[in-house]
Amino acid sequence: MEKQIVGEKAAQFVKDGMVIGLGTGSTVFYTIQKLGLLVKQGLSIKGIPTSFQTERLAKENGIPLANFHEIEQIDIAIDGADEVNPELDLIKGGGGALLREKIIARAARTFIVVADTSKMVDRLGTFQLPVEVIPFGYEMTEKHIRSLGSDLHIRIVNGQAFKTDNGNYIFDCNFPNITNPKQLEQDLNMIPGVVENGLFVGMADIVITLDIEKNIVIKKSKQSV
Amino acid sequence: MEKQIVGEKAAQFVKDGMVIGLGTGSTVFYTIQKLGLLVKQGLSIKGIPTSFQTERLAKENGIPLANFHEIEQIDIAIDGADEVNPELDLIKGGGGALLREKIIARAARTFIVVADTSKMVDRLGTFQLPVEVIPFGYEMTEKHIRSLGSDLHIRIVNGQAFKTDNGNYIFDCNFPNITNPKQLEQDLNMIPGVVENGLFVGMADIVITLDIEKNIVIKKSKQSV
Amino acid sequence: MEKQIVGEKAAQFVKDGMVIGLGTGSTVFYTIQKLGLLVKQGLSIKGIPTSFQTERLAKENGIPLANFHEIEQIDIAIDGADEVNPELDLIKGGGGALLREKIIARAARTFIVVADTSKMVDRLGTFQLPVEVIPFGYEMTEKHIRSLGSDLHIRIVNGQAFKTDNGNYIFDCNFPNITNPKQLEQDLNMIPGVVENGLFVGMADIVITLDIEKNIVIKKSKQSV
Amino acid sequence: MEKQIVGEKAAQFVKDGMVIGLGTGSTVFYTIQKLGLLVKQGLSIKGIPTSFQTERLAKENGIPLANFHEIEQIDIAIDGADEVNPELDLIKGGGGALLREKIIARAARTFIVVADTSKMVDRLGTFQLPVEVIPFGYEMTEKHIRSLGSDLHIRIVNGQAFKTDNGNYIFDCNFPNITNPKQLEQDLNMIPGVVENGLFVGMADIVITLDIEKNIVIKKSKQSV
Repeated sequence: MEKQIVGEKAAQFVKDGMVIGLGTGSTVFYTIQKLGLLVKQGLSIKGIPTSFQTERLAKENGIPLANFHEIEQIDIAIDGADEVNPELDLIKGGGGALLREKIIARAARTFIVVADTSKMVDRLGTFQLPVEVIPFGYEMTEKHIRSLGSDLHIRIVNGQAFKTDNGNYIFDCNFPNITNPKQLEQDLNMIPGVVENGLFVGMADIVITLDIEKNIVIKKSKQSV
Repeated sequence: MEKQIVGEKAAQFVKDGMVIGLGTGSTVFYTIQKLGLLVKQGLSIKGIPTSFQTERLAKENGIPLANFHEIEQIDIAIDGADEVNPELDLIKGGGGALLREKIIARAARTFIVVADTSKMVDRLGTFQLPVEVIPFGYEMTEKHIRSLGSDLHIRIVNGQAFKTDNGNYIFDCNFPNITNPKQLEQDLNMIPGVVENGLFVGMADIVITLDIEKNIVIKKSKQSV
Repeated sequence: MEKQIVGEKAAQFVKDGMVIGLGTGSTVFYTIQKLGLLVKQGLSIKGIPTSFQTERLAKENGIPLANFHEIEQIDIAIDGADEVNPELDLIKGGGGALLREKIIARAARTFIVVADTSKMVDRLGTFQLPVEVIPFGYEMTEKHIRSLGSDLHIRIVNGQAFKTDNGNYIFDCNFPNITNPKQLEQDLNMIPGVVENGLFVGMADIVITLDIEKNIVIKKSKQSV
Repeated sequence: MEKQIVGEKAAQFVKDGMVIGLGTGSTVFYTIQKLGLLVKQGLSIKGIPTSFQTERLAKENGIPLANFHEIEQIDIAIDGADEVNPELDLIKGGGGALLREKIIARAARTFIVVADTSKMVDRLGTFQLPVEVIPFGYEMTEKHIRSLGSDLHIRIVNGQAFKTDNGNYIFDCNFPNITNPKQLEQDLNMIPGVVENGLFVGMADIVITLDIEKNIVIKKSKQSV
């Protein structure tokens, strides 16, 4: 119910002619359905999906899709998050597609996050931080990440190390109290062997959520105000 | 209970000095535990694991591991199956590691399958047949497989197309009645874009299972008798 | 000179509205240039490129490109070959893209090969046969291929094992006298670990080449006559 | 000749019982040959190769090899470079294995660079900087790198986009005058889609080269002095 309210609200930011990055998950699901309705009513947009699932959902809802080489830029990207702090920094990537999501969020002029109240936290780190790493020498990469203060384990699916769409592994990392997300994001990315991590710092322009009385709240980041 | 009886039985075929291919799953689990006990009692073997999970399990049980470039051949491979027919042909690969399992089974002088009674079928095909395909042009590969008579869908995990350890997709295919497994295995492998499929025809030398009265049965293939 | 005559000739088979698989190499280069001219004169086609290089060349020549998910089928694929025998069987893949080329050739209703006289041989096998293999367990795969009678080496670029576009290795195999290409193609593909090989047996519908007096010859396969 | 003097000199730093990261190239070639001689004379070491070529060379020279999961750390890594500046910052990766080389250099307690005089430069940037990027959305990644001031092109081999051992692309980037290598290394790694880049800043502990009179010079970094 919360997810639907928040997800559908995001569709209001979409204007005719825009290229829209389409995120993945149970909240963006409602955004995509709503956009599908608007397309049927005449809205002309192109979608760039962050996942196979979203690609299908967009097609079922009649949203035309585009490839990166056909477009100049992404106007708005809309995606969910696993955690959002008061500065609108995020942890994302529980589903394993953090790199694809980060590439699209970064390429967008405006990045909108839809998040029900359960995702709003005072400090990031209750949710495990996913870190995508190259298989070669991953034992060394693991040591470097541990030296930053995290316990971690490699993600396993059906007995095999999970492979991302890019052919890499995911470490799920316990950084219990992330006091400086910007520094941690940078420290992680400077480790050779780390491809990307699930911290999205200073990227969200708008977060759509609910307040305690379940009214819609639209939070804007400082830089985008 | 069945799984334990069958799984532990397989350990009796293992002799001192052998290189053993170690499969994955809830039945082989008991084989590996049993082998671990025997190693503690002085058995000297080397294991080649088919999965990350098995690699860990073997280490926890004190079984030394080897790499392909250290060994000349695999003496015995022991693995489970999703289906076994009376000719000892198999469907494998529900877990997504069919290629790794097939490479190891093929490299082994003797391939032993451990299967509780629920896996024994009159005809293969109730279980979906996994087919590993290259991502490039997978739409075309899908058409070619459909033309062989199968309905199919691409395997999805967390909204993304599942990637095998080799970076490929899995199609789960409904061939409801596989009357000629050998021909089907070949037809599938001759499609460009198909890397491998879950049919293991004429590969199992021994199948360890139970009969109706729950006594252990050791079935041997014709060529290995 | 030969390459230009042969390459340009292939363009005559292309009709308005067709989807064309565009191969790679110094002969197809002239086909693509010619098609670019025809497009400028009003021909409406869509191209599916087999390589990055061809994708660029097609764009430079103004040929619109398509993706697999936009098309129903490929009408004609045009590509070069490393060797062509009198039955119009081929060895391809010297450039490392044999799988992409085979997927497109197989998907095409008509597969046209352009080959100068230096490619025409009585028996396949002077040119090394490329075989694409999965990195996992490649030492075992190498043994299986050797047991078919071939000497081989893994392809190296800049000191690293060459990786195909699909992330696999290439074995360049010496099968000096390939008397039964169909059987060899099948034997290779039935080895777990072999993804595909460079034998294209019974796939070419038309081969465009020159005779001894340098006149254009259009050879048609038996099945396509 | 220079290469041999410099390469062999590095072997003097290797002590009994060490784990040695073995780089790739025409200078390290002589280090590996020299280490092979020392091993024959009784030196006990284990090597971790950065490439397929080096793996072979080490085997031919009788140097035992190790895997990452067998070792606790690397004592010394020895590798070449494409450029070395007076602060001992490097550009590496012309051969395409920059990530593997960086993982091993970073994992080593001491990183020794062997470089003939042609590699010593006042300022980095005459040599193109290789940047390894994920194929997904590479068009966006290209834009982000261009916005840092670089012209660039994707590396092509045999008409296909070159794939690294990790399945990624290489952009060869023209940053003509790299005044702040540390900042550039960081800026590049913070771009989602960039896996790693060829700047090795503050990593080399020792650089072995020659002076103008062709005497061996051993330069030590400030932090390692």
